[in-house]
Amino acid sequence: MKPSDLSNHISQWFDGSGPGADIVISSRVRLARNLGGYEFCPCLNASRKREVLNKLKEIILSLDLGQDMFFIDVDNSSTLEQDLLVERHLISRQHAQAKGPRGAIIAQNESFTAMINEEDHLRIQVFKTGLQLKECWERINQVDNLIEKQVEYAFDPEYGYLTACPTNVGTGIRVSVMLHLPALKMTGQIEKFYNAAKDTNLAVRGLFGEGTDAVGDFFQLSNQVTLGYSEQQIVDEFSGFIVPKIVEYEILAREKLLKAKPDMLDDKIQRALGVLRSARLISSQEALFLLSHVRMGVNLKRLEGISIATINELFMLTQPAHLQMRQGHELDPDRRDAMRAQIIRSRLCQN
Amino acid sequence: MKPSDLSNHISQWFDGSGPGADIVISSRVRLARNLGGYEFCPCLNASRKREVLNKLKEIILSLDLGQDMFFIDVDNSSTLEQDLLVERHLISRQHAQAKGPRGAIIAQNESFTAMINEEDHLRIQVFKTGLQLKECWERINQVDNLIEKQVEYAFDPEYGYLTACPTNVGTGIRVSVMLHLPALKMTGQIEKFYNAAKDTNLAVRGLFGEGTDAVGDFFQLSNQVTLGYSEQQIVDEFSGFIVPKIVEYEILAREKLLKAKPDMLDDKIQRALGVLRSARLISSQEALFLLSHVRMGVNLKRLEGISIATINELFMLTQPAHLQMRQGHELDPDRRDAMRAQIIRSRLCQN
Repeated sequence: MKPSDLSNHISQWFDGSGPGADIVISSRVRLARNLGGYEFCPCLNASRKREVLNKLKEIILSLDLGQDMFFIDVDNSSTLEQDLLVERHLISRQHAQAKGPRGAIIAQNESFTAMINEEDHLRIQVFKTGLQLKECWERINQVDNLIEKQVEYAFDPEYGYLTACPTNVGTGIRVSVMLHLPALKMTGQIEKFYNAAKDTNLAVRGLFGEGTDAVGDFFQLSNQVTLGYSEQQIVDEFSGFIVPKIVEYEILAREKLLKAKPDMLDDKIQRALGVLRSARLISSQEALFLLSHVRMGVNLKRLEGISIATINELFMLTQPAHLQMRQGHELDPDRRDAMRAQIIRSRLCQN
Repeated sequence: MKPSDLSNHISQWFDGSGPGADIVISSRVRLARNLGGYEFCPCLNASRKREVLNKLKEIILSLDLGQDMFFIDVDNSSTLEQDLLVERHLISRQHAQAKGPRGAIIAQNESFTAMINEEDHLRIQVFKTGLQLKECWERINQVDNLIEKQVEYAFDPEYGYLTACPTNVGTGIRVSVMLHLPALKMTGQIEKFYNAAKDTNLAVRGLFGEGTDAVGDFFQLSNQVTLGYSEQQIVDEFSGFIVPKIVEYEILAREKLLKAKPDMLDDKIQRALGVLRSARLISSQEALFLLSHVRMGVNLKRLEGISIATINELFMLTQPAHLQMRQGHELDPDRRDAMRAQIIRSRLCQN
């Protein structure tokens, strides 16, 4: 498999089929691990990095995870290939932009990915559609155990798993969900969500992880504390309490809008669809913004004949690197805007 | 005929059928006249105003202009009826808002209208579709002569026709055209048009005369000087030189856009149509703005199956007083926005 093979279809975890996926688009659990006997990545020279890469690559590719697994040599990938992997959340932007021997291992259906020599020697991630954090945790725990049988992780009896950055020490776990909160945004209550997240030590980010603004009503919410709680506790609190509370707020905001301002709501939804079906040039930011409104329209049953899978697919496939990979070469922003508009039009006018 | 009878159809002069009507929507010539032996309106008391009104009403209604003529008692009309007449350009906003005995006489097809006791005792106007200023002038000259056979106008051998406001003294003529200049606006050249108008002593106004901003790429251009030139000279210069020059600029700007930025142009046109066909709430300003882009799209043959008559009709019929008259009662702005959107949608989705 090559990165370019990914540019025409949606990742399974993003297909909108999971439980509660109208609001919780997807769940992700990530573990940070390092090998004993090696310096952390920031201090590791190129030949030692190569050793770590080869060792982990061989072990992970040999695991039977019930899926074909592919190795991608990130260091020797083109910028476009790297960008495509970032857009699909398979690797981080930092991993794409780093230097030296590094790689990624990706399961065919993209539900599992491992980054080797990112900030830590190994970061493994499991993705699932909808709110399935427990399932992600169970799965990643299995994988982690399988790997741990073959390597010695850097581990301290008092602190737990050691990591390059102290914020990951302990469990090394990060759990996160991708949320679609258009009604909270529309009713001006999104600040409440931000504040609540801050108060409970959660991080809110845009669709593309650290350092990006939340755009188009999409938010990534994740834990910040990895030390002092067990993985199970972190997952349980996130999955059983925090996320359901936010989902409840969003549902209430949607009901309120439907009741108090149905015309305004329909206007926003129908305009968004109208523009998406008409535009000849559209930026990725505007597409995200408009698709968000259409997505809410479908979820609230104010629009018929359009599937969430189609909308999610458009989110993913109209990103800049996806467009260029599909075209087979780089495109200037104007051409991307035209191609994006054309793809959206043809997909949404079929319905 | 009552004002409410007007609210469902377009004025003939606004139907887009005339010569060059893609850019020059309509032509208008207006004459200001006052009766000898009466004070000018600002100094005329109510009973003398009543005399002037009755006298002019009787004379004008008796003229054979080849059209049924209707008198409207503006003083006793409802605000909604007055607003409807203003929206149709049949009377001025000042005439609607004035006090005391005053009226309007309107030809069935709205090509001729007379205001009695506006700023002057009599203001007569002739409208035609497209660039037909000479035809307007010939027509209004005939009507003026017919009236002058029956009354004595206030006239000074040196200055000409005397008027309440010195800016109208002399010929008392105002010639104007309603222009659609979307390409000059889009290419940022509209300032040139404004400056050229200023340099040649022309007034640029919005679609609704004095004191309104030009909105949605529509401009009303008229002469300001009425003294020192004959009517014929004013009409000839306007019709033969000034307007063709502006039309030429607009055509050049359209050609330039088509050549240099066809995608951008199509994007604007298609988005405008998409929003008009989708919106559930739309303000009159936004409707004007979007209909303007669609109008250009039809004129540039970038859109098919929509007629200019339909678009012009929507400009006229979706104005606030038209909507309310059609509904039979007053509507708050939200309801108007919903009704406007509904009418636009049903007319543009038929095509």
